[in-house]
Amino acid sequence: MPKAPVLTPQADDFPRWYQDVVAKAELAENGPVRGTMVIRPDGYAIWERMQAEVDKRIKAVGVRNAYFPLFIPESYLTREAEHVEGFSPELAVVTHGGGKELAEPVVVRPTSETVIGSSMARWIQSYRDLPLLLNQWANVVRWEMRPRLFLRSSEFLWQEGHTAHATHADAAAFARRIHLEVYRSFMTDVLAMPVLVGEKTAAERFPGATRTLTCEAMMGDGKALQMGTSHELGQNFARAFGITYLDEGGDEQLVWTTSWGVSTRMVGGLIMAHGDDRGLRLPPRLAPIQVVVLAAREGDGVVEAVHRITDDLAARGVRAVTDTRTDVSFGRRSTDWELKGIPVRVEVGPRDLASGEVTVVRRDTVSKDQRPLDAVAGQVEALLVTIQQNLLSEAGERLRKATVDVGTIDEATQAAATGFARIRWDDLAPEGERRLASSSVTVRCLQREDGTLPDDDDDAPLWATVARAY
Amino acid sequence: MPKAPVLTPQADDFPRWYQDVVAKAELAENGPVRGTMVIRPDGYAIWERMQAEVDKRIKAVGVRNAYFPLFIPESYLTREAEHVEGFSPELAVVTHGGGKELAEPVVVRPTSETVIGSSMARWIQSYRDLPLLLNQWANVVRWEMRPRLFLRSSEFLWQEGHTAHATHADAAAFARRIHLEVYRSFMTDVLAMPVLVGEKTAAERFPGATRTLTCEAMMGDGKALQMGTSHELGQNFARAFGITYLDEGGDEQLVWTTSWGVSTRMVGGLIMAHGDDRGLRLPPRLAPIQVVVLAAREGDGVVEAVHRITDDLAARGVRAVTDTRTDVSFGRRSTDWELKGIPVRVEVGPRDLASGEVTVVRRDTVSKDQRPLDAVAGQVEALLVTIQQNLLSEAGERLRKATVDVGTIDEATQAAATGFARIRWDDLAPEGERRLASSSVTVRCLQREDGTLPDDDDDAPLWATVARAY
Repeated sequence: MPKAPVLTPQADDFPRWYQDVVAKAELAENGPVRGTMVIRPDGYAIWERMQAEVDKRIKAVGVRNAYFPLFIPESYLTREAEHVEGFSPELAVVTHGGGKELAEPVVVRPTSETVIGSSMARWIQSYRDLPLLLNQWANVVRWEMRPRLFLRSSEFLWQEGHTAHATHADAAAFARRIHLEVYRSFMTDVLAMPVLVGEKTAAERFPGATRTLTCEAMMGDGKALQMGTSHELGQNFARAFGITYLDEGGDEQLVWTTSWGVSTRMVGGLIMAHGDDRGLRLPPRLAPIQVVVLAAREGDGVVEAVHRITDDLAARGVRAVTDTRTDVSFGRRSTDWELKGIPVRVEVGPRDLASGEVTVVRRDTVSKDQRPLDAVAGQVEALLVTIQQNLLSEAGERLRKATVDVGTIDEATQAAATGFARIRWDDLAPEGERRLASSSVTVRCLQREDGTLPDDDDDAPLWATVARAY
Repeated sequence: MPKAPVLTPQADDFPRWYQDVVAKAELAENGPVRGTMVIRPDGYAIWERMQAEVDKRIKAVGVRNAYFPLFIPESYLTREAEHVEGFSPELAVVTHGGGKELAEPVVVRPTSETVIGSSMARWIQSYRDLPLLLNQWANVVRWEMRPRLFLRSSEFLWQEGHTAHATHADAAAFARRIHLEVYRSFMTDVLAMPVLVGEKTAAERFPGATRTLTCEAMMGDGKALQMGTSHELGQNFARAFGITYLDEGGDEQLVWTTSWGVSTRMVGGLIMAHGDDRGLRLPPRLAPIQVVVLAAREGDGVVEAVHRITDDLAARGVRAVTDTRTDVSFGRRSTDWELKGIPVRVEVGPRDLASGEVTVVRRDTVSKDQRPLDAVAGQVEALLVTIQQNLLSEAGERLRKATVDVGTIDEATQAAATGFARIRWDDLAPEGERRLASSSVTVRCLQREDGTLPDDDDDAPLWATVARAY
């Protein structure tokens, strides 16, 4: 039975394919107010898994969660000049509350450096209070004219970490640590996405930052997506909000702050990094459901076997569910689980059962084989590890193949049509960056030649990776 | 060494005591915009534990998490007459976004029946799509003129469940199930708070509901706090948003919806239900930190013993931390852990150690005893169970002692000065309810005489519990 072509093929129109997957896999849809997003249960389950894994890693480095208000006095935003300039065009402003016009309008937080800075100023007295390591999981609003589900929406969900340190070196080291130990490790190990870790150019920095680190990933069409950023904020916010401490000698000093965040945008990145023409492909370590065990039809002990296998998997800590909806065609159910990206399907039918076997289907390679009923749970558990590795190496392979080193801006622009180009920053510099922009190509990050993150006092020549980006 | 009286005694001024605890235990403070709240790490850790326990129970009854937009078109609110009337005075309104005045103002959600109703109308086609069981964890805004940290704030955090069912009976049964299996069981088993489960009077119902169930708890001063509510919404929102389904006969029908929520207000309830003049008393099943193991001073193997005990506790699944800050006085550290309500302190000093013992201090009874070093982890694990039971039975005892059955409205008003009064609803009825209101006494809930929840078609006479309330 030929399957209905539910999705636009990636090769025909990648952005359209993305929209199709998000809609048909029931991940998200537009909300009634322009730019807002409804995250449906299957999409939200992916976000919940991301939250759990990131939260664990954030806590492991000693950060504590807290919660700061959604509403910020308009005057707070204006205290840091670059910050207000960067965010003003995107603000949502509340002018009426409780049936009255407000004396001072309040903005809906686009990010929380300012309101958290005002708390830090109260909480920090002496060097003993440092470092102060905070994080919050929250919604933020940045008015968006050209919204795209998960990738750019007027409201999105994220975590934003905010820390204060006694010295520049401490702040820089902490931002780096979050970036490598939390973000890069989560993206590589859990999302199976190899990411470039580098520094943003001055033009691409967060408004108010002295340095922005970024994780950049390559999508299935060769474009880049910024997956997460960490900022050194110098003493800019400390000065604006009077965040000071008494050092060991009793002198008053300004603190050094950082901020860093990842958002629901990662869900979009995950879809575009691993998805294929059949739909999502979820890496097993992230997948809310790792294995679905399907009954082909009722009778002959099929349903009982389905439950037994599922229980065996659950006992091994595998996130497994049953599908015994035998009133829906088997083909349709298989296609649907494929669309939703479940890493492994175990299919149980009466004929297989009779010979003591079941069919195991990998979502990543779309390959099937027969496995002995007695040993299937253990074998599937091992297979999940293989699939995780395979998705990471597939994505790594694509990144390597679609990245070229070039010597001129024209070559860079051309290469960016299908992938990433690397060019010496000295050959590009700010003027070249502006020229690239006219072809919608941007500098995604600056790295050392070997792809590592530059140090603070680095003499090594920098290389820019340039690409088109979402 | 006498301890400084850090808190206003409860007997002197209970509301002041509450403010003191919230401030000194570093749980929360006011945000810069009136009525908003900053939840500090120690307060947020309590909320995270509440979230984890409630979320687990919500999922266990088959509900799935999703996320709906913060912003709702103003026109949505007006579609259900009682709903808009109830919430209009409390709305925050966004009139400007992205640097422009908006064509239609949007409101910041005070609750999400309307925006979720509009999604349900798209997602539900046939009886096969029912029941639809959704929940979201989110912030909501209800402009508050007389804010109180945790208890009443302009922005608060909560979960709001929203479900759609084919019949009135299904909807009623589900609201009841959430109320008893999720809310009451969580509050009793985890928060150690005995709650009255009853029905709200028409005057106290959620705007747009046909029935509101409530969990009411008694605070340390005999006043009531509404801890959570579940609403039957009839077909009111189904009609307003066109949420229909095709039944098995192919006829179009309106669904029946419910909604239900608990919020950060529970943190306030927990403080006021169990706290004493020394500070918080956290029930062990909820406590983010269940045991703190303190080194009295360095040397003589004290710090090593502290780590060994903590590891033993952790191996048993106990949430234990060490306190080896020997540069801070032991008395001050003990008082501080007491203030923060940690259920058990294990104190390790060189003299005790020499005789193979340590000191164990219960926070609930503030009693100490010596325990053998070898067996302390196991004994503390058992002690946590005892403390949990003791807090529940103490609160139950207070509720029983401070509740009286009365026959007249004057007696009810008098009894409500120090606790709860029960009176036959026939003796009170709407007129009496209005008379009570003039003494700031309200009907907290209606129950059967035996304290159980009335059925839909109940003939048994109802009893009203009346009290002053937060």
